[in-house]
Amino acid sequence: LRTGQAEVIFCQGKQPDHIISILKHLGEKDQNVLGTRLDPQTAELILAHFPDAIYDRLARCLLLRPLSEPTIPGKILIMTAGTADLAVAQEAWLTARYMGHDVDTLFDVGVAGIHRLLGQRELMDQAEVIIVVAGMEGALASVVGGLVEQPVIAVPTSVGYGAHFQGLAALLSMLNTCASGIGVVNIDNGFGAASLASAIVRRITRHQ
Amino acid sequence: LRTGQAEVIFCQGKQPDHIISILKHLGEKDQNVLGTRLDPQTAELILAHFPDAIYDRLARCLLLRPLSEPTIPGKILIMTAGTADLAVAQEAWLTARYMGHDVDTLFDVGVAGIHRLLGQRELMDQAEVIIVVAGMEGALASVVGGLVEQPVIAVPTSVGYGAHFQGLAALLSMLNTCASGIGVVNIDNGFGAASLASAIVRRITRHQ
Amino acid sequence: LRTGQAEVIFCQGKQPDHIISILKHLGEKDQNVLGTRLDPQTAELILAHFPDAIYDRLARCLLLRPLSEPTIPGKILIMTAGTADLAVAQEAWLTARYMGHDVDTLFDVGVAGIHRLLGQRELMDQAEVIIVVAGMEGALASVVGGLVEQPVIAVPTSVGYGAHFQGLAALLSMLNTCASGIGVVNIDNGFGAASLASAIVRRITRHQ
Amino acid sequence: LRTGQAEVIFCQGKQPDHIISILKHLGEKDQNVLGTRLDPQTAELILAHFPDAIYDRLARCLLLRPLSEPTIPGKILIMTAGTADLAVAQEAWLTARYMGHDVDTLFDVGVAGIHRLLGQRELMDQAEVIIVVAGMEGALASVVGGLVEQPVIAVPTSVGYGAHFQGLAALLSMLNTCASGIGVVNIDNGFGAASLASAIVRRITRHQ
Amino acid sequence: LRTGQAEVIFCQGKQPDHIISILKHLGEKDQNVLGTRLDPQTAELILAHFPDAIYDRLARCLLLRPLSEPTIPGKILIMTAGTADLAVAQEAWLTARYMGHDVDTLFDVGVAGIHRLLGQRELMDQAEVIIVVAGMEGALASVVGGLVEQPVIAVPTSVGYGAHFQGLAALLSMLNTCASGIGVVNIDNGFGAASLASAIVRRITRHQ
Amino acid sequence: LRTGQAEVIFCQGKQPDHIISILKHLGEKDQNVLGTRLDPQTAELILAHFPDAIYDRLARCLLLRPLSEPTIPGKILIMTAGTADLAVAQEAWLTARYMGHDVDTLFDVGVAGIHRLLGQRELMDQAEVIIVVAGMEGALASVVGGLVEQPVIAVPTSVGYGAHFQGLAALLSMLNTCASGIGVVNIDNGFGAASLASAIVRRITRHQ
Amino acid sequence: LRTGQAEVIFCQGKQPDHIISILKHLGEKDQNVLGTRLDPQTAELILAHFPDAIYDRLARCLLLRPLSEPTIPGKILIMTAGTADLAVAQEAWLTARYMGHDVDTLFDVGVAGIHRLLGQRELMDQAEVIIVVAGMEGALASVVGGLVEQPVIAVPTSVGYGAHFQGLAALLSMLNTCASGIGVVNIDNGFGAASLASAIVRRITRHQ
Amino acid sequence: LRTGQAEVIFCQGKQPDHIISILKHLGEKDQNVLGTRLDPQTAELILAHFPDAIYDRLARCLLLRPLSEPTIPGKILIMTAGTADLAVAQEAWLTARYMGHDVDTLFDVGVAGIHRLLGQRELMDQAEVIIVVAGMEGALASVVGGLVEQPVIAVPTSVGYGAHFQGLAALLSMLNTCASGIGVVNIDNGFGAASLASAIVRRITRHQ
Ligand SMILES: Nc1ncnc2c1ncn2[C@@H]1O[C@H](COP(=O)(O)O)[C@@H](O)[C@H]1O
Ligand SMILES: Nc1ncnc2c1ncn2[C@@H]1O[C@H](COP(=O)(O)O)[C@@H](O)[C@H]1O
Ligand SMILES: Nc1ncnc2c1ncn2[C@@H]1O[C@H](COP(=O)(O)O)[C@@H](O)[C@H]1O
Ligand SMILES: Nc1ncnc2c1ncn2[C@@H]1O[C@H](COP(=O)(O)O)[C@@H](O)[C@H]1O
Ligand SMILES: [Mg+2]
Ligand SMILES: [Mg+2]
Ligand SMILES: [Mg+2]
Ligand SMILES: [Mg+2]
Ligand SMILES: [Mg+2]
Ligand SMILES: [Mg+2]
Ligand SMILES: [Mg+2]
Ligand SMILES: [Mg+2]
Repeated sequence: LRTGQAEVIFCQGKQPDHIISILKHLGEKDQNVLGTRLDPQTAELILAHFPDAIYDRLARCLLLRPLSEPTIPGKILIMTAGTADLAVAQEAWLTARYMGHDVDTLFDVGVAGIHRLLGQRELMDQAEVIIVVAGMEGALASVVGGLVEQPVIAVPTSVGYGAHFQGLAALLSMLNTCASGIGVVNIDNGFGAASLASAIVRRITRHQ
Repeated sequence: LRTGQAEVIFCQGKQPDHIISILKHLGEKDQNVLGTRLDPQTAELILAHFPDAIYDRLARCLLLRPLSEPTIPGKILIMTAGTADLAVAQEAWLTARYMGHDVDTLFDVGVAGIHRLLGQRELMDQAEVIIVVAGMEGALASVVGGLVEQPVIAVPTSVGYGAHFQGLAALLSMLNTCASGIGVVNIDNGFGAASLASAIVRRITRHQ
Repeated sequence: LRTGQAEVIFCQGKQPDHIISILKHLGEKDQNVLGTRLDPQTAELILAHFPDAIYDRLARCLLLRPLSEPTIPGKILIMTAGTADLAVAQEAWLTARYMGHDVDTLFDVGVAGIHRLLGQRELMDQAEVIIVVAGMEGALASVVGGLVEQPVIAVPTSVGYGAHFQGLAALLSMLNTCASGIGVVNIDNGFGAASLASAIVRRITRHQ
Repeated sequence: LRTGQAEVIFCQGKQPDHIISILKHLGEKDQNVLGTRLDPQTAELILAHFPDAIYDRLARCLLLRPLSEPTIPGKILIMTAGTADLAVAQEAWLTARYMGHDVDTLFDVGVAGIHRLLGQRELMDQAEVIIVVAGMEGALASVVGGLVEQPVIAVPTSVGYGAHFQGLAALLSMLNTCASGIGVVNIDNGFGAASLASAIVRRITRHQ
Repeated sequence: LRTGQAEVIFCQGKQPDHIISILKHLGEKDQNVLGTRLDPQTAELILAHFPDAIYDRLARCLLLRPLSEPTIPGKILIMTAGTADLAVAQEAWLTARYMGHDVDTLFDVGVAGIHRLLGQRELMDQAEVIIVVAGMEGALASVVGGLVEQPVIAVPTSVGYGAHFQGLAALLSMLNTCASGIGVVNIDNGFGAASLASAIVRRITRHQ
Repeated sequence: LRTGQAEVIFCQGKQPDHIISILKHLGEKDQNVLGTRLDPQTAELILAHFPDAIYDRLARCLLLRPLSEPTIPGKILIMTAGTADLAVAQEAWLTARYMGHDVDTLFDVGVAGIHRLLGQRELMDQAEVIIVVAGMEGALASVVGGLVEQPVIAVPTSVGYGAHFQGLAALLSMLNTCASGIGVVNIDNGFGAASLASAIVRRITRHQ
Repeated sequence: LRTGQAEVIFCQGKQPDHIISILKHLGEKDQNVLGTRLDPQTAELILAHFPDAIYDRLARCLLLRPLSEPTIPGKILIMTAGTADLAVAQEAWLTARYMGHDVDTLFDVGVAGIHRLLGQRELMDQAEVIIVVAGMEGALASVVGGLVEQPVIAVPTSVGYGAHFQGLAALLSMLNTCASGIGVVNIDNGFGAASLASAIVRRITRHQ
Repeated sequence: LRTGQAEVIFCQGKQPDHIISILKHLGEKDQNVLGTRLDPQTAELILAHFPDAIYDRLARCLLLRPLSEPTIPGKILIMTAGTADLAVAQEAWLTARYMGHDVDTLFDVGVAGIHRLLGQRELMDQAEVIIVVAGMEGALASVVGGLVEQPVIAVPTSVGYGAHFQGLAALLSMLNTCASGIGVVNIDNGFGAASLASAIVRRITRHQ
């Protein structure tokens, strides 16, 4: 009844024991599992029970088993404005790869140095859908949206300070984009962006 | 350089004369044009110059010429929670049809009467992408997102009062959805939702 | 003069010594006492003085003596959307049981998988009043409110991140519900929901 | 499937024609209908089609036929802090009476003159449930909640100015009440308060 | 040029060394000094240099020398709604006593139990000015303001949770009071309340 | 039981008939009455019933009879930052004069031209209490608070635009003042400032 | 004492008579005067008294006499993202020209079509300082700031809807820019941007 | 392509290894580098790799090599309202000095004691541009802006509490200044203020 994405566990606010028993239960079905928003302390407790599991400190995600090779055709491109947005990009990357997708990346192409971005046209052209991860003023989403015809998924990050209000500035910026063809997900929600990208790419694949 | 969507004019805050001259300029190229967020008073001034133009009072949109038949395969489904969300749904419908798409609609299926929604499974299954338009608490997006595998585009509307804060409640609700595969656009942004739906469907079509 | 609920102590922001002296004072009257919003460190200091007291880590509540069996007829049902809402549900459960009520629970029936919820009609029908605990977009309150005729008490939780703003998204969602027969309490206020449920059930009992 | 309350139409944002056709449809079933949040201009258009209909300017509500006598035992008491809260109180009164309830009222008993309120103990004691309507700082809900054991439904109103932010001040005040047994509805939502009161009283009646 | 209050040091965000040198400098002039918003760790470093200094953990304030007896006639009354508001009340008390005033206190008289408050009329009548310290919904200020003719100074506290937003709920409540004769200071600003009370009482004294 | 200020009617949101009947009732007792926040249209309806009444368009206030000479010693000084703050200052002036006080005024002394303010030391010295009315950034309150020892009452106004948010900027500025001896009232609340000033001056007078 | 800019009158909230008398007073000194934020109705009343005065409907500004030729060397460039930002740009243009500056303009170069902007490098290079006027997501400021070495003044406009919150989105975006060398003024504050640009250019000129 | 300011690294949210490799890379080019918003723990890890590097605890900044003497004529003056604003002022000072500028400072001249400020006219007159750093109500920017003709750059700080909302109060205050010639940067953004000051001074120098 639920989609294939149901094996992604949102770990924030769950007790370690609870997470372990879900992992055990799902793992028995010979299924890989992804756990998101898992802090390092809890991860350590969990890793002790699963010898093959891997914890990605940057993305704060856990994988019950290593990733397999991509099985679904159609590239997803993940772009970031700054290096501080990498954690969120990594959550998106892991999620997309875990769901079987082929993922390209293009990091640190923020709008304060627009020429770096413009030099990467080819990578953009090769993607079916583009995920733009940006904090600060989040302007990268608009610039990319204006350059490409593909659907763009914008992920505001909490990277910033002061009047950034933990990502609100980037979120509002992206919702008010003057470009078209852009959908927005929650602040820091790399998982959500990858899920939407996956739904789009799987739809394309289904028609091939 | 710009996408085919460039012929959609955002009329809010523009002087009537300015809009007329853009319409004249684009109309000469034998192109249809869509004008959004146009109030009835300004529309009347403009209609006097273009005998074939049509103004849709509900959607507050103007079309330079009547719509043609859909040319792009792949259905877009537009759903609304309440009847008060119809204006925004109509803007989305006009935009999608103007861009050449085939559009289904399903209105007034809000979550306070969940069985009406569940009885419409077939219509959902036929769509490539679903646009969910909802005000109040905006919960319809999550319920639909949980039911389907297709990409869902959520449009919060300003329909509500009090602690709705002109659409903020519905917007935050949609951004925090517990379902996956959902992208959000600005409050009342029917145009934006249709643009993103169009980008997705055109991508699918391209591969057929 | 004050209601019977006066023996519930709001511990947040109180000095340990102060809490201990209140507990001693009330305990002497052969009365059980419930302490809410008590952190584990302070709880440990307090437990040293009261050998029969119990601290519930999940709910962050302390009971001076074990709970007795329910004495008031009429069931209260506590539902949660996700497993991360359990802490708040547990505060509500303890409060309701402490006040003498009979409580049913139904956890993890969030709207992203609506069929799990629909399969539990019977449990809902047996309750005099239903408490719905939900974070994220808080849509469960609307769906339940649309399904049942009983009064529904909605508790938004701070479970979420980004544009959730520590529970604001769920709170606004619940206040703007399109269903009827729903009252809302403060974010994470399991105690408040149970108090209101208790006032309703006691009113019903009084008439039997 | 839907509750008996389904015949209440939320008119805000609906086209007059649409409202008329709903009223005709429901009226044919020999059913009375209540329309809320209806502005006087639209009301006038509608009244022309329904000779027995009545429009209440203060509450901005329309009734298809005159109210009948109360049929459900158990009093609902509606209190207001100031005279400017009367419009919201009237919407609650009409809704409760329309649903068949017996309603008492107590107006202008705000906390700046606490003795007027304290002199009305008897009226409060006679009610099964109390609706408190208050703008400004909304403190009446807490004072009443501290005085009575019955469930209290708090309705913040948009009466105020400046840092009231159209009812936000009263809403936050009520959500943060230090009294217990209080549920809150949306700003100016007299209808919602009466619906919840009705659900509670009908539950009590069912057990008699 | 500056007022006598200039010897109160706002310690938050200042380096320990900086505070020590100010204290030394002012202390040499045979003057007592009050330091507010000083955390316990920094206080310890400072106490090592000043053998007569006293640190009040509850108020988070430091006094260079013990307080002397009140020298200015005219009582200031400090009231609190709950026991969790004591820290702010204590900052106000220390400030007022440090400035030479005679201070009465009345704690834990919140509006959820209005009769405790009404039983304390005499204490209120004896004061020249009343400081009301309250968190949660901050309703005590309105009730007191309605009971007395003296000027009332309202101090919202950050005591609360959820939709309290660290004191915002109480602040807005107090600014929107339906009583008259009330001035508001910043959230948790016991010092500011006492300064204003002092300015008022000194004005009265000057005329005696 | 209520204070002498009870004869001030808050007219906003009240029906004309209602205001007229209150005025008639109070007027019969040979009492003057002040009505605040009364719009010109409603005022006109009311004036038709009371030949001696006066409506002040700037302050949007109505007086049942002309003002008498001041009867209470002790000056209140009302200052404004800009000329656009005059409406609020006038509400404060009328209220203070209506309550029997002697009032001085000093307008247009905003901080962008600090020397105009500094040249007016004498007027400030003569007042028992100073009301500072300011919009924009509201900085005048801090500067005056730093210059004088008397109590200062700060009234933020909604004069401003953009990020002023209808007075929020000035309100927050005044609440965060670095000067001491300042109490704040609601945005545009000239009445509230005068009420507090009156309470203070009456207290001083009582001791003379 | 005040700067030369003192002859700019902020007309919003001022009575027509008041504005007329200021204009008469200043006009007698053979001085030109600029009035900003003046609505068309008031402007008409004022124009009747000053035969040489000009009212600019777009900028909502009045000039007592026609503009003279620029007298201060050093170009100011005013750029806008969209045509709906023209009103604010025009206020900035009038202010800068009124203060004696030489002004270039570059309109409708928003980031959704980045190549139009990149084609205008020369105009940017010729300016001493650049004013960027943008609504929606306000991203133009960051892109320009990244391209040039000159100081950039960013003016967020209220052009947008929904989650734009009357300019808040653009304001936050500009404050959080990832480019450097950018100062921000209030939403829609064309006057403020031009004043700052003028202060900078006059400083440069002074050194030539 | 990028400006000379590109060698300033924003360290917040970057991994230590990442910062070290950037420093190594840039350091090899014989270039000095400034790292901002670097916490002490990360700084320690980094200092171990660069023997000549200096970490400024107050400013939370790192310099790869010691500062050289100023090389660009034209003074920048940095003023603060309170001593708690020193950290932000120090970030601005380091940035300006790092960029080759000559910097004066004037600390602790807040508006609560306006005469200290007025006594420092000369220092202000000597500057080409003035940076005003202020928390609390941020009024210093307006007062300075009214006194001088030079461009003023206002930096709101997060120094404050309660309704300060981490700098929001000071930010709004500065954006709504009634003085002219003022540009605002993000809360606590000493770096941004210095960058803009540098862009202005370099423009002046270029013309000398
Ligand atoms: N990082 C994330 N952010 C938002 N939603 C998530 C995230 N990770 C997983 N989810 C969703 O949460 C669901 C599982 O929630 P749960 O049953 O509480 O573990 C998954 O099916 C996903 O839809
Ligand atoms: N978790 C809670 N949230 C809100 N109110 C509570 C909570 N726990 C207890 N209370 C209320 O606080 C009152 C006791 O407050 P206190 O006298 O400060 O201990 C009780 O009578 C309850 O009404
Ligand atoms: N402009 C005003 N702003 C705030 N409160 C006011 C105002 N004018 C009158 N009031 C208060 O409102 C009370 C009267 O309220 P009401 O009984 O509704 O007329 C008076 O006693 C005053 O305390
Ligand atoms: N549109 C505007 N926005 C902000 N400030 C303005 C504007 N127009 C004029 N001002 C400022 O307002 C001052 C005049 O204010 P006033 O004395 O009230 O007319 C001028 O010196 C300018 O500094
Ligand atoms: Mg695009
Ligand atoms: Mg889905
Ligand atoms: Mg229901
Ligand atoms: Mg109660
Ligand atoms: Mg009073
Ligand atoms: Mg003072
Ligand atoms: Mg630059
Ligand atoms: Mg200036």
